[in-house]
Amino acid sequence: MPRLGTGDVESLRAHSVPIPSNIDPCASSDWFKSAHAKSRPTSKDLSHHFSIESRSLVGSAIKAFANQHKTSKIIALGEGRPVPEYYPWEHLSFRGISSSLNNIEAGSKDEGALQSVAKQGDSYNISSALNYGHAVGSSYLVRFLTEHVEMVHDPPYADWKVCLSCGSTSALELALRIFCNRGDTVLTEQYTYSTAIEAATLVGLRVQGVSMDPEGLRPDCLDEILRTWDPSRGPKPRLLYSIPTGQNPTGTTQSAGRRQAIYQLAEEHDLIIVEDDPYYYLQLGPYLDRPSTRDNTEELKLDETFINPSQVPSYLSIDRSGRVVRLDSTSKILAPGLRTGWVTASSAIIEKFVCYNDVCVGGVNGPSQLMLWTLLDRSWGHSGFLTWLENLSKDYCSRRNIILQACDRYFPKDICHWTPPEFGMFLWINLDLAKHPVHRSATSLGGDHSQQAEIEERIQSNALKNGVKVAKGSLFSADRRYDGKLQFRITYAAASKGDLDEGVRGLSNAIRKEFSLSPI
Amino acid sequence: MPRLGTGDVESLRAHSVPIPSNIDPCASSDWFKSAHAKSRPTSKDLSHHFSIESRSLVGSAIKAFANQHKTSKIIALGEGRPVPEYYPWEHLSFRGISSSLNNIEAGSKDEGALQSVAKQGDSYNISSALNYGHAVGSSYLVRFLTEHVEMVHDPPYADWKVCLSCGSTSALELALRIFCNRGDTVLTEQYTYSTAIEAATLVGLRVQGVSMDPEGLRPDCLDEILRTWDPSRGPKPRLLYSIPTGQNPTGTTQSAGRRQAIYQLAEEHDLIIVEDDPYYYLQLGPYLDRPSTRDNTEELKLDETFINPSQVPSYLSIDRSGRVVRLDSTSKILAPGLRTGWVTASSAIIEKFVCYNDVCVGGVNGPSQLMLWTLLDRSWGHSGFLTWLENLSKDYCSRRNIILQACDRYFPKDICHWTPPEFGMFLWINLDLAKHPVHRSATSLGGDHSQQAEIEERIQSNALKNGVKVAKGSLFSADRRYDGKLQFRITYAAASKGDLDEGVRGLSNAIRKEFSLSPI
Repeated sequence: MPRLGTGDVESLRAHSVPIPSNIDPCASSDWFKSAHAKSRPTSKDLSHHFSIESRSLVGSAIKAFANQHKTSKIIALGEGRPVPEYYPWEHLSFRGISSSLNNIEAGSKDEGALQSVAKQGDSYNISSALNYGHAVGSSYLVRFLTEHVEMVHDPPYADWKVCLSCGSTSALELALRIFCNRGDTVLTEQYTYSTAIEAATLVGLRVQGVSMDPEGLRPDCLDEILRTWDPSRGPKPRLLYSIPTGQNPTGTTQSAGRRQAIYQLAEEHDLIIVEDDPYYYLQLGPYLDRPSTRDNTEELKLDETFINPSQVPSYLSIDRSGRVVRLDSTSKILAPGLRTGWVTASSAIIEKFVCYNDVCVGGVNGPSQLMLWTLLDRSWGHSGFLTWLENLSKDYCSRRNIILQACDRYFPKDICHWTPPEFGMFLWINLDLAKHPVHRSATSLGGDHSQQAEIEERIQSNALKNGVKVAKGSLFSADRRYDGKLQFRITYAAASKGDLDEGVRGLSNAIRKEFSLSPI
Repeated sequence: MPRLGTGDVESLRAHSVPIPSNIDPCASSDWFKSAHAKSRPTSKDLSHHFSIESRSLVGSAIKAFANQHKTSKIIALGEGRPVPEYYPWEHLSFRGISSSLNNIEAGSKDEGALQSVAKQGDSYNISSALNYGHAVGSSYLVRFLTEHVEMVHDPPYADWKVCLSCGSTSALELALRIFCNRGDTVLTEQYTYSTAIEAATLVGLRVQGVSMDPEGLRPDCLDEILRTWDPSRGPKPRLLYSIPTGQNPTGTTQSAGRRQAIYQLAEEHDLIIVEDDPYYYLQLGPYLDRPSTRDNTEELKLDETFINPSQVPSYLSIDRSGRVVRLDSTSKILAPGLRTGWVTASSAIIEKFVCYNDVCVGGVNGPSQLMLWTLLDRSWGHSGFLTWLENLSKDYCSRRNIILQACDRYFPKDICHWTPPEFGMFLWINLDLAKHPVHRSATSLGGDHSQQAEIEERIQSNALKNGVKVAKGSLFSADRRYDGKLQFRITYAAASKGDLDEGVRGLSNAIRKEFSLSPI
């Protein structure tokens, strides 16, 4: 049977478990998967990976009790839930924008339809959304996201599930608590998301970086670390945290072959892979040398890429065993303030996430879920969502091209090196320390990390004097120490398009000053 | 100087740090306190109470960096925040209800003004709320809640602060992680919120219940436990988790004298008190024996009670040392689905909560904050909020009276005993096991806990057959075992008023059946 396309969703819904009209039930992805998805072999039992903390976790007794007997009329003297008449909001409305934009930022935004949400009603409504919710998420969003995940990733085992998260930062903390014990070591890319390092440190874990090349994390180095692990350093790592696409901070994207090789190592060494992939949908395509001579965004034919991601398959899409925990986020593709994402993994693992959400944050807030449901499901639909992602990608592509042109224009080529990113929002600038005046006059700089730290700090601070804020590379170093390299992360996501060129010039002049070159 | 009243807020704001019109800064309660509040002596240094996990936590480097230099124009190449043009919502509006209601549930709700939130604007707006927020909360809510806390609690030390939480369940988990290490024992009421027990178990803690009487937790028993602590059981407890008002599940409220005695013990034994107080504002007043003969809700003169809580002072309001962590929640007074609350404690403790929020959930979502701000600050104001709480209290009072009248009517008086609650939403029904047929025919029941469990289960299940759901008392037992008592928690919050009488009858008939009495 062929995999699911956006056109198949209506018929899929016609055959899936209907959501009752008067209540938001505690839903399972199994209700909404196609027969094709359910026909796959099941995942392996990987429960030996659960931490001491999570092993005994069974969730909230009173919430399990609250979820029983929801369909028949029962007088509720059991649960301390205020009646919806006591919620002081009668009506919410949201005006989204249309997904069919040619250029989002050009100001020609089409207003979408006004989406109103009533207090009561025959589907998701204020009374449901402002009540205690299900830790797994509203059934309306579980349905939409299950369909979406099947369309895009088509996981090769049967018992995968989706649950909502309070954003990927929250999901990562939970993943670390679910799988790791204090004193364990987690593996990450050599440079990685700084909050991931902080979360791991908080949970009492050591972080070991794995060397990278322009295709990201190197499987040979991963294998080396695992094969030669010295038990005196603590238990052999069981968890790899990776950002495979448009990596933060380096902007690298693992090729399909790279992913297969790393997955194969995970199988051999029995690793859990936490695939943190918020930049997956920002697909920019290759950077052509002289993009200014024509409209480079026309190169993108993204429908195919999103639906059939053969070029960069997600780890989820090649995961036969159920050892991948995929984290998706609305932060980079819709809005960070929603604090909402979704996790896809085997049923046994998703159950742990749901239990943590029950006992800890209590699940995703209702207003964000209502906004997502009205926009994604009621207004855009699956094909509209993919159209939005394509248009967003085109706009990020044009931002990427502007900043790369500015880099070509301003950076001293013998000192600064970078690889054009094909996904995401980050560009990683490597500076050649050997060209630094201090280095040229003394041989000690390579080992003198305090001096490196000073140089890095001075460039950042001089850039700020030039009116531009950049992030120091050392912030992202997995082992939090200077390693003889001088690097900066810049992004084309946050400034206005018109400021990008000037921003790069400001950084370039800070670098030039440090390296005793005249400004440009 | 007199304490702050609702009428003083305008002049207070005129003298406090103004919130910049173009940006939502990372705010501190210190900006918004009165001179009176800031003139108090500072709190004690209690940093020896921080856990191994939280001791070294310093928050997120990249977020600290992002919070710098927010006021001048800087080209932002440093932070991966999408520009607001990429958030697909242009306009949000909320219609709240007016706070000046006589009877909320009677259906005569006045619609409040339509509150619109624009994408950009000169105060809190979509572009701010849907961006990455501050873990402490939006400055607009930090201001409102700081003013509110000062008006209601007037903490007797200077360096208290408020931060937002993702609900009190989340705040409690964080409090346990901030103060406790695996193997520690936390003290709670003998019967307590079941999710609190589950959170403590998750974090690896033992829970020891402290005996209660109709005024709640008994200070003599607390003192006994602490004075006679056997170190072979682990470290002497350092944290007391208490629900002092309208306690869940027992409905008891600690008197002013009781609170002073417990606080004094906390001082002597150097305890942190986590004051979980979601029912504080549901002030029902005493239950008069024959309330049906007149309008009992007229007794309530609540303005004074809220502003000058001399009758049941919060622990925060008597905390000279800064050892109280007060948890407030919007769940019982506005809507649970917002997943929002606030924490008040010393500056050093609030800093830990903010760091956890930075590294873990990333703070409270924007849509809930926007809804709260438009309702509380822009629409109702402080006096409107207090009016809302008074009206809500009156409505809960009438619910409480209906259910107590039903209890008088239906329960067998020699078997069922209860104390009318004066706060909150819970009623705790004690059943006399000595009257049970099994007990009368055999002397072994007192020690036969499996038989008790069966009786409890059977009553719950028979009540369900009678169409009413109640919560078993054993669910709330701090040490999770049967203790020779048979108890049920019922609530008048969740059913419609018209169903409360019938609900009690259904439970009563399940009890009557178990005790071989004829139904009523």
